[in-house]
Amino acid sequence: MRPLDLIRKKRDGGELSSDEIQFLVRAYTGDEIPDYQMAAWLMAVLIRGMTGAELSALTGAMLHSGEVLDLSDISGPKIDKHSTGGVGDKTSLIIAPVIAAAGVTVPMISGRGLGHTGGTLDKLQSIPGFNINLSLSEFRRVLRACGCGLIGQTADIAPADKKLYALRDVTATVESPNLICASIMSKKLAEGIDGLVLDVKTGSGAFMKTEKDSVHLAELMVQTGERMGKKMVALITDMDQPLGLKVGNALEVEECIEVMQGGGPADLREVSVELAAWMLYLADRTPSVDPGRLLAAELIANGSALKKFREIITQQGGDPGVIDDPLRLPQAQRQSPFPSPKSGFVNSIQCEQVGIASLVLGGGREKKEDIIDPAVGLILHKKVGDPVHQGEPLCTIRYNSDTRLAEARNLLQQAYRIAEKPPGAKRPLIQRVISGKGAQA
Amino acid sequence: MRPLDLIRKKRDGGELSSDEIQFLVRAYTGDEIPDYQMAAWLMAVLIRGMTGAELSALTGAMLHSGEVLDLSDISGPKIDKHSTGGVGDKTSLIIAPVIAAAGVTVPMISGRGLGHTGGTLDKLQSIPGFNINLSLSEFRRVLRACGCGLIGQTADIAPADKKLYALRDVTATVESPNLICASIMSKKLAEGIDGLVLDVKTGSGAFMKTEKDSVHLAELMVQTGERMGKKMVALITDMDQPLGLKVGNALEVEECIEVMQGGGPADLREVSVELAAWMLYLADRTPSVDPGRLLAAELIANGSALKKFREIITQQGGDPGVIDDPLRLPQAQRQSPFPSPKSGFVNSIQCEQVGIASLVLGGGREKKEDIIDPAVGLILHKKVGDPVHQGEPLCTIRYNSDTRLAEARNLLQQAYRIAEKPPGAKRPLIQRVISGKGAQA
Repeated sequence: MRPLDLIRKKRDGGELSSDEIQFLVRAYTGDEIPDYQMAAWLMAVLIRGMTGAELSALTGAMLHSGEVLDLSDISGPKIDKHSTGGVGDKTSLIIAPVIAAAGVTVPMISGRGLGHTGGTLDKLQSIPGFNINLSLSEFRRVLRACGCGLIGQTADIAPADKKLYALRDVTATVESPNLICASIMSKKLAEGIDGLVLDVKTGSGAFMKTEKDSVHLAELMVQTGERMGKKMVALITDMDQPLGLKVGNALEVEECIEVMQGGGPADLREVSVELAAWMLYLADRTPSVDPGRLLAAELIANGSALKKFREIITQQGGDPGVIDDPLRLPQAQRQSPFPSPKSGFVNSIQCEQVGIASLVLGGGREKKEDIIDPAVGLILHKKVGDPVHQGEPLCTIRYNSDTRLAEARNLLQQAYRIAEKPPGAKRPLIQRVISGKGAQA
Repeated sequence: MRPLDLIRKKRDGGELSSDEIQFLVRAYTGDEIPDYQMAAWLMAVLIRGMTGAELSALTGAMLHSGEVLDLSDISGPKIDKHSTGGVGDKTSLIIAPVIAAAGVTVPMISGRGLGHTGGTLDKLQSIPGFNINLSLSEFRRVLRACGCGLIGQTADIAPADKKLYALRDVTATVESPNLICASIMSKKLAEGIDGLVLDVKTGSGAFMKTEKDSVHLAELMVQTGERMGKKMVALITDMDQPLGLKVGNALEVEECIEVMQGGGPADLREVSVELAAWMLYLADRTPSVDPGRLLAAELIANGSALKKFREIITQQGGDPGVIDDPLRLPQAQRQSPFPSPKSGFVNSIQCEQVGIASLVLGGGREKKEDIIDPAVGLILHKKVGDPVHQGEPLCTIRYNSDTRLAEARNLLQQAYRIAEKPPGAKRPLIQRVISGKGAQA
């Protein structure tokens, strides 16, 4: 097999065999194919696309480039959830305890924040002592102990994805639905799960801005997972404004605790319960999604989820005291209201701008080396459709640096649109469900 | 300017500005852009195409990456001809003396043989002593002395093309009409010419197998040359069988001498006269193409062309005695007839196979380092449409190695198709003329 022939085949719109794709991934990961040949192939893939069989082969080759967890010694189904990323998107911290409290194992291996979106790992690390850098054997121990573990990617998992992603990043080949799908799925399937619920965000705060693109990516991931023997479902959920009212790492942990205490904002609760319900159904814990919703709500209401969260924090070395006293989470030194420039109704919130505002405050990374400030962020007082008076705060900015505050203010000024009349019909939180054959509601 | 943004723009089908293309070519040639980024861009160009403005900018940037000859101190127009390459395609050796004999300067910088096609340089080097490695100042001296010089590309000419071609060769991005056009035109325009006649070959022995592809490439080159202020015309000529009767370096020089002596095969003479006529017209030496044909034929008939060829050989250090005694050209030690397997008519000749047969005999290079055997080759006795008896030789093989003879025989067996009935209408030698606005016939 010659790399040149495989590049040519894809260039001309042909379909590569599974062997051919395996050869490419293996040889590239083993430094036998130079970057320039892989770059040409990736560009051809981005423009020409892939068949379902090609995408499964690519995902499989990337998956098997590293360690794949075998959790068969832990009884019962293992189910995970993955979100494509959003602003204030903190459902994992609620869902994982809920599902584990229902007796289903959740082996969650997560990523860092990417661009304007927050990352589960960064949020967890705002809990003093919480260790997300467990080895795979420590991870197994935690899973056995409390049914749930939340860690970062180790070097053993899908090394082909690491090398390919670094090349995609510098060759303008990130934005390929096929390559995005293979990257996500190769890492998620390494968790040794039986089923996966995908939360594909859509709107101004998501990577996929349109429903069409979100549905396309969701379908690719559902089909790929199914071809590889997993139960799959994808929910297309709204990310046209931040989810919940708090954006920023420690602030989001606080809000998740509020939800698990029975409070918190309704939208965050709804999306969390919906995703959890599908996980319970995929795990065969409930016969359909409806009783899954009831069970999830009950596990929150009766305190089981919060108790499980306490266990997880303890198992991973964190301070469970944050649950009873949120002031033990990192606190910003200062806060400043962001007032509405006029009276009217919040017409729209440019969600990506809000994410970047939190990032520039120190809540995210502009460069890989940047250090996160876990305390900073935004507390929203008004969301789309809410009435507001001139001078009334749209949100409160929690900050530690005056120059960063100024930058964040600039971004927020561009983010909010206030109109005289209330906006039309609300976007539904759950826009579509794309379920695999093995997961019909 | 960031390479990533320019890759993204072309990836999404956008048009790059002249400045952006210049930046890419300069930075890549200066080793400031890595191969993998250029590979991604080249693949995007191959698939998405280029506008005329982009192609001119690319050609210009590649041209100006090196030395551009200024021949304004030599009076009168400077005109060249370029062929996209074929089998038995030896017209340069006839045309250059004809045009120089008409008082028009021909500064011909040529390439080596590529793949199954022969190269002008390799043919010239079969003339004992002929030096194609002149410096640009020696080249000027020869041009002044006899109005024509025939040399190889120096390192000073279009270095960007050298680097880009090497990358295209290993990333499956050779077969882009835009990139082919920029590569050819950047080298040809470095000759300091006023006009260029392109011979775009089409058929089984050409790089462009179909008329559609040949016309597309011809149009790109004509438009690009015109945008850069040159008089341009392209002739689409037949390469569905070898041109003339001789294939191989010394054999082809011999056949050119035959034509300039008033003999030789009709097809070779016709294509040479036609190309020469267009050159004379572009040079304003004749008011239209028709009198150009007459003048070219006359310069052959009255011996002026052959006299000029003698001068050129002498100026470039070669032995002009080969003109009077072809046996002074390298001679193969052995020859062997290749008989027809049956009686009938030659229906078709797979021309690329014939070219490869000559190559394996030693007449071309499989690897860049291979040394050419100037003496070997093929003498055709039958061409398409000719009747043939079983056992009668279709061609004679001139060779120096038995194993190579066997290989060539195998290839020739696949090349000739003999049918019971004569084939239909002959393909015209000159299939189309694509002339720029400045060169209407």
